[in-house]
Amino acid sequence: MMDRMGTTELAVGIDLGGTSIKAALVSRQDGLVKQKTAHTEADKGPVHVLDTISHLVRSFTGEAGDVLGVGIGSPGAINWERTTVSRPPNLPGWEVVNVGDELAKRLDTPLFTLVENDANAAGLGSAHYGAGRDFSSFIMVTLGTGVGGAIIYENRIFRGSTGAAGEIGHMSIDYEGPIARSGVSGAIEAYLGQRFLSRQARYMLLNRRDSLIHQVAQPDLKGITPRMLYDAAVSGDRGAREVLEWAGHKLGRVLGSIVNLLDIRKFVVGGGLSGAGDYILEPARRSLERSVLPALSEGLEIVQETGGNDVGMLGAAHMVFQHVDEHR
Amino acid sequence: MMDRMGTTELAVGIDLGGTSIKAALVSRQDGLVKQKTAHTEADKGPVHVLDTISHLVRSFTGEAGDVLGVGIGSPGAINWERTTVSRPPNLPGWEVVNVGDELAKRLDTPLFTLVENDANAAGLGSAHYGAGRDFSSFIMVTLGTGVGGAIIYENRIFRGSTGAAGEIGHMSIDYEGPIARSGVSGAIEAYLGQRFLSRQARYMLLNRRDSLIHQVAQPDLKGITPRMLYDAAVSGDRGAREVLEWAGHKLGRVLGSIVNLLDIRKFVVGGGLSGAGDYILEPARRSLERSVLPALSEGLEIVQETGGNDVGMLGAAHMVFQHVDEHR
Repeated sequence: MMDRMGTTELAVGIDLGGTSIKAALVSRQDGLVKQKTAHTEADKGPVHVLDTISHLVRSFTGEAGDVLGVGIGSPGAINWERTTVSRPPNLPGWEVVNVGDELAKRLDTPLFTLVENDANAAGLGSAHYGAGRDFSSFIMVTLGTGVGGAIIYENRIFRGSTGAAGEIGHMSIDYEGPIARSGVSGAIEAYLGQRFLSRQARYMLLNRRDSLIHQVAQPDLKGITPRMLYDAAVSGDRGAREVLEWAGHKLGRVLGSIVNLLDIRKFVVGGGLSGAGDYILEPARRSLERSVLPALSEGLEIVQETGGNDVGMLGAAHMVFQHVDEHR
Repeated sequence: MMDRMGTTELAVGIDLGGTSIKAALVSRQDGLVKQKTAHTEADKGPVHVLDTISHLVRSFTGEAGDVLGVGIGSPGAINWERTTVSRPPNLPGWEVVNVGDELAKRLDTPLFTLVENDANAAGLGSAHYGAGRDFSSFIMVTLGTGVGGAIIYENRIFRGSTGAAGEIGHMSIDYEGPIARSGVSGAIEAYLGQRFLSRQARYMLLNRRDSLIHQVAQPDLKGITPRMLYDAAVSGDRGAREVLEWAGHKLGRVLGSIVNLLDIRKFVVGGGLSGAGDYILEPARRSLERSVLPALSEGLEIVQETGGNDVGMLGAAHMVFQHVDEHR
């Protein structure tokens, strides 16, 4: 899309993670223009991290003068106004940081800045640059260390009352089930979170000496990764396939509750475990079908995110375009 | 609120139920102006029911010339455009009915007509005339024959992708739990729906000969009603209190998943079982607290609907005011 002057509209998108910071110069018309990555070096504290972010931003704006603003996807709680990050896990020393103010101090020309929860930024990125492009409303589910999520409703982030909506990982599928770090029994994260799934896989496979997992994992089957399970499943390993089926079945159950509540029937699944593709998604589809009201069963879809990790920084940049549209 | 001519704005609200039709003339400024009720006589088919509705509407418009339109809360599936009702349970012979067209045929002066799911209409009514007035966003939960619900987000109905959002009754709290008529295992309706709760109460109390319920229910404890449980609980009956605690605990668990997903922390509970008040809501509050992410635990509230059944027809009328506002 061209603005009124006929020039390309640009924004910078930042995906702030515990180990790396991904940055992109994004054109509304053409998507990703340029990309850079830096180490977060989170242990050096917020001042260092903010210096690194502003350095990345400057490296783009130096080349392109007409950047509309900066969008940042960040862990931690984001305030309603999308200006502050509070106590992000994995970023020690951050209390409440006004990211826009901090960047303004460091840039020659202050840029309009918006911050958003990283899962929400990824959802918005998927909606406009990833697998979510096919849907106007969908749920983004991220299966990583934890289970994250975002609600995209009519191409926008549904933010709830305070900006914290989308915590799918803490929805429960069993009121007497296992307990994840949130303290919620039966939270889906207590099945699909990396640590929990790894342990479940270990228990399911310890006594199955024929499983290929015994050849790739540690002798006591600790530290089984999604990748190990996927590779073994592709090689026809029955045990690995059963673990992924077990996980997919649980995933479908929580997605069913979401369909019944929201009448949103499309799901985009990203994150490491989503790499297992149909080995996990196909059982999820089957259990999803059995978990929704018959009247809501048409048009259910669970698809894998195709944009990989890039959707985070792309979605962050897109927030800027959306904001500009709203205030024109 | 006065319109530009300084006259009061009026709308007709209809709450179409399986046994009765409640109708109201509603003033935007003053709320309920006049109310009438008719028997549905659903067995006589849709033509008869539509005749009755149009008769009720005409009885109001004959007196007040400046009615803006008619809003109808109805069981069954409502289309996105809010013009048709499809296969409402309890209303035999209805297939797909365009209610506005049918009313227009029957009225001398056709009136603008909107139809909405009855649970959504009740939610909107609560938002503007009931306990929901205190909240801009909340979840309406109706504990009746089934368990219904509505999502009110920023004073409007959240309708999902096709208009069917809010089916809280079919959200699951146990993926291996009991199965309600939807076929969803562990659906909250399979705990709190009238038939299920009545059976649970029977099983919990059959061998407790000291419970007051034995004095009011049938000899084999079939047909226990919420009212019986409430009355016994008020009289200090430990067994009845335990049944309501059991129910409240389950309710809190499903509400917790909703908070984690939507970051909406306020709940208004209506319907027959809500008459049990704090005997069910207090245990629900306790289990809700244990079911949400710590970051979302501030400001949780579960309150009882104060507007009774009137919120349905009031909300139906309010749809008309909201529509007029949108199109001014």
